[in-house]
Amino acid sequence: MPQDLTRDLQDLIERGRDRQLRLAVTGLSRAGKTAFLTSLVDQLRHAGLEARLDLLAAAREQRLLGAQRVSQQDLGVPRFPYDQAMQALDGDPPSWPTPTRGISELRLKIRYRRAHANWWRGHTAELTLDLFDYPGEWLLDLPLLDHDFAGWSRTQCEGDGPARRALFADWHAAIADLDPASEVDETRLAELSERYAEGLRAAREAGFSDLQPGRFLLPGELAGAPVLQFFPLPGLDDWTTEALAALPDTSLYATLARRFAYYQQHIVRPFYRNHFRRFDRQIVLIDVLGALNAGPERFEDLSRALSRLMQSFDYGQRSLLSRLFTPRIDRLAIAATKADHVTPEQHVRLVALLEALLVEPLKDLRFANVPVKALSLASVRATEVREVTRQGRTIPALRGTDLDGDAVLTFPGEVPTRLPDADFWSRQGFDFTAFRPLPREPGPLPHIRMDAALDWLIGDKLT
Amino acid sequence: MPQDLTRDLQDLIERGRDRQLRLAVTGLSRAGKTAFLTSLVDQLRHAGLEARLDLLAAAREQRLLGAQRVSQQDLGVPRFPYDQAMQALDGDPPSWPTPTRGISELRLKIRYRRAHANWWRGHTAELTLDLFDYPGEWLLDLPLLDHDFAGWSRTQCEGDGPARRALFADWHAAIADLDPASEVDETRLAELSERYAEGLRAAREAGFSDLQPGRFLLPGELAGAPVLQFFPLPGLDDWTTEALAALPDTSLYATLARRFAYYQQHIVRPFYRNHFRRFDRQIVLIDVLGALNAGPERFEDLSRALSRLMQSFDYGQRSLLSRLFTPRIDRLAIAATKADHVTPEQHVRLVALLEALLVEPLKDLRFANVPVKALSLASVRATEVREVTRQGRTIPALRGTDLDGDAVLTFPGEVPTRLPDADFWSRQGFDFTAFRPLPREPGPLPHIRMDAALDWLIGDKLT
Repeated sequence: MPQDLTRDLQDLIERGRDRQLRLAVTGLSRAGKTAFLTSLVDQLRHAGLEARLDLLAAAREQRLLGAQRVSQQDLGVPRFPYDQAMQALDGDPPSWPTPTRGISELRLKIRYRRAHANWWRGHTAELTLDLFDYPGEWLLDLPLLDHDFAGWSRTQCEGDGPARRALFADWHAAIADLDPASEVDETRLAELSERYAEGLRAAREAGFSDLQPGRFLLPGELAGAPVLQFFPLPGLDDWTTEALAALPDTSLYATLARRFAYYQQHIVRPFYRNHFRRFDRQIVLIDVLGALNAGPERFEDLSRALSRLMQSFDYGQRSLLSRLFTPRIDRLAIAATKADHVTPEQHVRLVALLEALLVEPLKDLRFANVPVKALSLASVRATEVREVTRQGRTIPALRGTDLDGDAVLTFPGEVPTRLPDADFWSRQGFDFTAFRPLPREPGPLPHIRMDAALDWLIGDKLT
Repeated sequence: MPQDLTRDLQDLIERGRDRQLRLAVTGLSRAGKTAFLTSLVDQLRHAGLEARLDLLAAAREQRLLGAQRVSQQDLGVPRFPYDQAMQALDGDPPSWPTPTRGISELRLKIRYRRAHANWWRGHTAELTLDLFDYPGEWLLDLPLLDHDFAGWSRTQCEGDGPARRALFADWHAAIADLDPASEVDETRLAELSERYAEGLRAAREAGFSDLQPGRFLLPGELAGAPVLQFFPLPGLDDWTTEALAALPDTSLYATLARRFAYYQQHIVRPFYRNHFRRFDRQIVLIDVLGALNAGPERFEDLSRALSRLMQSFDYGQRSLLSRLFTPRIDRLAIAATKADHVTPEQHVRLVALLEALLVEPLKDLRFANVPVKALSLASVRATEVREVTRQGRTIPALRGTDLDGDAVLTFPGEVPTRLPDADFWSRQGFDFTAFRPLPREPGPLPHIRMDAALDWLIGDKLT
């Protein structure tokens, strides 16, 4: 009895304050953020009726009554374009929604029946779920806060493979004999910065992920502003810190350093201060299969980018983030997306690969006591599973429509469970087909394990 | 002798502090801001050599040594794209530069010889000239600060002519039976706002100028954000202020009012606070000829828009701006652009018409003791003056290339010196040809009275 009373009291307190959760979705570009958020909203909107969300306890117990979009709090953040995304999926032919740029937001009011109702609290309750979607590229900029310009310059261009280096060849050639002490020429500086930005854009096009500074790729209203006109300066090792600090304000070095500092102050910090530290939960989407497809150099690059990105969730005592801000994300999911692009028996292997890819960051997170779950999912399932007989054996296969509109029946192959080594790349390689969405049936979007993701991310708030 | 000493002392003080001037250029879209700034920079860069700037005392006296672009102060404001603009003018065929969007900035260091040098101060001096370019549409939003949402709703849609009203017909029909007290539907609200924004865009395309809220036309990173999703609500006259204030937070009225307030606070005020109040001098460019071409309804609309726009420069004691901020613009120019589109003897008439158009604002400005000068100019002269004989009389004519690339020889007609009345519109009308730039000769850009504008705006700082 006294125990029950304590629980009732806690519930009363919880009921008194706003029941509210801020869930953030991120991922590097093309990881599938827009499809994920669209599906998440769609599943919850259908929750009371025909949704298939058996892995979400509240839905399995038929306590989920439905969800409605309501007015968001921050009027200055674009609303997540759910309707446009659904239109694309409903098109003829269906197509993937246009990716969002920058941050967007959507507020859902979820109604559910309590697991344990009693005389003084009603049966039904509401949870306000604020959804945020932002580019994972913004998180790649966090380590930039840990450096001054000279330090940052040293970390850049290190460990680049030949393909990536080739994309920056133009810029490398142009800056080869720049003298840090020379008087700055504004016009020349703008040109060189544009070449650096071109390198970053080409690298993104070519499938690379570890790209800094992130805002160079999405300049928005800052296009042409000096804050986006700088680049790392190689060859600073010949200089002492004192010699660099003594250079005049109008020198190339001092100008670049000033812009770097402005970028830290006015681009990187505001995102963490105004948005990031207010998120309660986070899911990071990762297109592991896409990176496998792109070959060893890009896969290695993704691995580097993810290590950087995950630093934003490491609240260890020594961490930069804990020193600068006080983030409160108390539960994290990392998900390999597009699981429908391999056959079902490969899903376990896909999660194993994801965990192998993130082994170091996951160690740090667990050490810092941040609950984290790895899973594989498909936000909007674009294939159907079939069986084919080959050389007398029955093997699973996928049927779907490729991006050119041709019907495809394929066995995409085996996902490695460990980071592939050089031998593996040369022996096997990967070639997954990219599918477009299937024509839609009425009802909620077909998915794989969206319910598992939902259960981990919001399930405990629906009791 | 004591008098000389006083002057010397003043000079010493002036020399001690930074000699710096912040000059802002604005105008409604298509008024010619980009061409003006490009020409201004070009004239000053050529100032020491072959520039034709006889109306600028420092140039006439051969004391102007030249100008250089240097690093601007605010790293977060796009740099004015001078090089791109020159490339367009230098193209084959030459074309007008792409209009800038939003605010941009450029810093020039001007070197000149002092008019009166003496033993203790050097002969040469420097003036740092910060140039700013921003859309005149932003100034149209100033009056919006003077209203609450209900008051603003009442002022909108008033006095619209038939052509303008037709462009908003869709929106008018859609909101006809909106009830301010009804529960807000986010999706519907987004749709209706989009229709309103479509009306504004169509009105701008059709040559109208008096368009509020200005940011709806240049949303930038705020595209899709709720702050840009509102519209005036007609029919509020049936409601008392108390009844409106009593409506619940989730009502249509309260939602629109909240967004309007957010727009005031986060869009309109920051421009005045961060930029406008720091300008020292201002030139407002006006395409009077374009408006004459577009007919009576658009001309009337331009006149309304200009009255609104000029309120930003009226620092009378009762003025909104003086109450909210403390602007310091101490000299203002208003210029009718594209003077090269009429024959030279019409220029006096063009200025007379400009003054007639602005008669009320000019009265207010003079009363508020803000020095203001009206002039006509052509930033980049696109025509040559010829004489033709018609019916035995020699009349002036213009030779140039129209936008389709055809050579044209034309007498564009007479500019009225007063606001044209209904009779005038039906009797005569106007039909000026739009010209594209002439192929460039080496040297500075050809112009009309850029030197007069420069003399008024910066001449006193070059002594």
